[in-house]
Amino acid sequence: MSTLRTALTELVGVQHPVVQTGMGWVAGPRLVAGTANAGGLGILASATMTYTELESAITKTKTLTDKPFGVNIRADASDAPHRIDLLIRESVRVASFALAPKQELIAKLKAAGVVVIPSIGAAKHAKKVASWGADAVIVQGGEGGGHTGPVATTLLLPSVLDAVDIPVVAAGGFYDGRGLAAALAYGAAGVAMGTRFLLTQESTVPDSVKHEYLARGLQDTTVSRKVDGMPHRVLNTDLVNSLEHSGNMRGLVAAARNASKFKAMTGMKWSTLVKDGLAMKKSSDRTWQQIIMAANTPMLLKAGLVEGNTHAGVLASGQVVGLLDDLPTCKDLIDGIVADAIKRIDALGALRA
Amino acid sequence: MSTLRTALTELVGVQHPVVQTGMGWVAGPRLVAGTANAGGLGILASATMTYTELESAITKTKTLTDKPFGVNIRADASDAPHRIDLLIRESVRVASFALAPKQELIAKLKAAGVVVIPSIGAAKHAKKVASWGADAVIVQGGEGGGHTGPVATTLLLPSVLDAVDIPVVAAGGFYDGRGLAAALAYGAAGVAMGTRFLLTQESTVPDSVKHEYLARGLQDTTVSRKVDGMPHRVLNTDLVNSLEHSGNMRGLVAAARNASKFKAMTGMKWSTLVKDGLAMKKSSDRTWQQIIMAANTPMLLKAGLVEGNTHAGVLASGQVVGLLDDLPTCKDLIDGIVADAIKRIDALGALRA
Repeated sequence: MSTLRTALTELVGVQHPVVQTGMGWVAGPRLVAGTANAGGLGILASATMTYTELESAITKTKTLTDKPFGVNIRADASDAPHRIDLLIRESVRVASFALAPKQELIAKLKAAGVVVIPSIGAAKHAKKVASWGADAVIVQGGEGGGHTGPVATTLLLPSVLDAVDIPVVAAGGFYDGRGLAAALAYGAAGVAMGTRFLLTQESTVPDSVKHEYLARGLQDTTVSRKVDGMPHRVLNTDLVNSLEHSGNMRGLVAAARNASKFKAMTGMKWSTLVKDGLAMKKSSDRTWQQIIMAANTPMLLKAGLVEGNTHAGVLASGQVVGLLDDLPTCKDLIDGIVADAIKRIDALGALRA
Repeated sequence: MSTLRTALTELVGVQHPVVQTGMGWVAGPRLVAGTANAGGLGILASATMTYTELESAITKTKTLTDKPFGVNIRADASDAPHRIDLLIRESVRVASFALAPKQELIAKLKAAGVVVIPSIGAAKHAKKVASWGADAVIVQGGEGGGHTGPVATTLLLPSVLDAVDIPVVAAGGFYDGRGLAAALAYGAAGVAMGTRFLLTQESTVPDSVKHEYLARGLQDTTVSRKVDGMPHRVLNTDLVNSLEHSGNMRGLVAAARNASKFKAMTGMKWSTLVKDGLAMKKSSDRTWQQIIMAANTPMLLKAGLVEGNTHAGVLASGQVVGLLDDLPTCKDLIDGIVADAIKRIDALGALRA
């Protein structure tokens, strides 16, 4: 089929300028390989995997696809350098970061031929990582799911495009061919989508949870700071509403309990948790309470997205959930988006007078 | 110069698919004529004018331009039918509405050859006014200024485009040629902009206030319900911050005082204010307190936008304010937007592979 060649497709060597983001608990080998085989860039979420789990996930993904894919790493994790070595050893094509990695880690990855694409939330952060050698950035407008900022894509995207010369991938509010055409019109090199890929056949999120998402409307997400102290766009489930209206102490107690569970599950030592916490303290202005809350997020997301317990869990989601009503395969999704974007682009040319 | 021909330019008979919205206190004859003479669609804000002032404003605008322009009317104002007769008598090209007008008023305007373009905030409202005969709609995403909703343009716009067959004009987050190209890529018939036109040479907002806007960043607006009970995106001035943190009683007292001033200024009778309030009660689920707060808004906006008193006033603004750093003429603004949009559209064609 015909496609759209952009700075992203050239940089990464994928067929289509469409990225599946590294959603914690959601972006595993099956979804990533599904995206890769459909010609997009799939990104494994390693933040919710132990080192050993990441190792297996990379191996598994390689058995499912021979196309390039990426891995998302929490740059502030204490074993981030170890994970980066793994990516290099495994010749993973793209390293994606939720927080900007250190300059020397970027250099190491690039020297090994790994493409470095951090996610950033403001023009000044884009400038910083570009000056450190990042190959491209993903920027997510406030309408996007999970951790998100207050500025909408229509403004955040052009502000980042104006700030850097490297390719910019647009996220937040994208789900169809119109959106891809619009992102390219702004000058972006492609779109990245989370919620849209969560709601595909290849996504391993339990069916009951997928249907919970599909039933939601455009105003059924909320940005809560009660999950982990940072603004987080999630479905406004009963749990989230009750967190929003509870005092801080109740949230803190639940957070400590969940941090403890997360530790047990991942085999993390308390010393590691404290070390990660200290790194987090250093790289942000969060309070200790927020650090404990942060350890909370993975468990709350897991309860929802893996165990299908929507009463106990938190379901990260973009506003886009209100417009989605199907569960396509990755191939049907990406083919449809690209074909429609091309139609839109052709139609635009006809407006010239 | 070359331009872009869309359903909007055809419908209204303007050269460019660019609309200047009917901002209260801001969109007067000088700005509207400036927009019209530059080939865009300028809309007079009549909600903050008495009937007599509107009469003069239309006359004045006609002395400044022979191009088509529009008038924005509060459909729930008690003298709305009277104002509509005025528009028909004066052969005003476009009637715009902040709230959907009654079906018979739409019919009357259309029979007289006036183009009817209500602003709507959700797909279901677009459907309703389309079924009532509206010729087009303006839809504003949450990043836009003044009264606004929670859903961003990237999602609200396609949801409305999917809901109706009439032309849809996109608002919220637009200010340049990239945005126009993106809006057209979504399938919109053009863009409407408020804050961008407030910050032009022809805008009569005091220079000191314009510079207050220009100094603001992307995160310097806030959506407050404390101004009039409805979500209102404004610059986060000290006044707004103090309203946000004050109890309801303090806000209510200030509101009653301002409602009284507004009444005095516009020569409105208390009976009219109560009649308007009753109409508002009927057409929305606002409490009486919110109705009193609503009467508050015009005075707070006037203090800021007309009198230049940014300490006492409220300054409606889109998030876009963070990206604006100049005060162009309407002609330079619109010419630049259209020329750049055309460049973007041409560049898009080159991505096809």
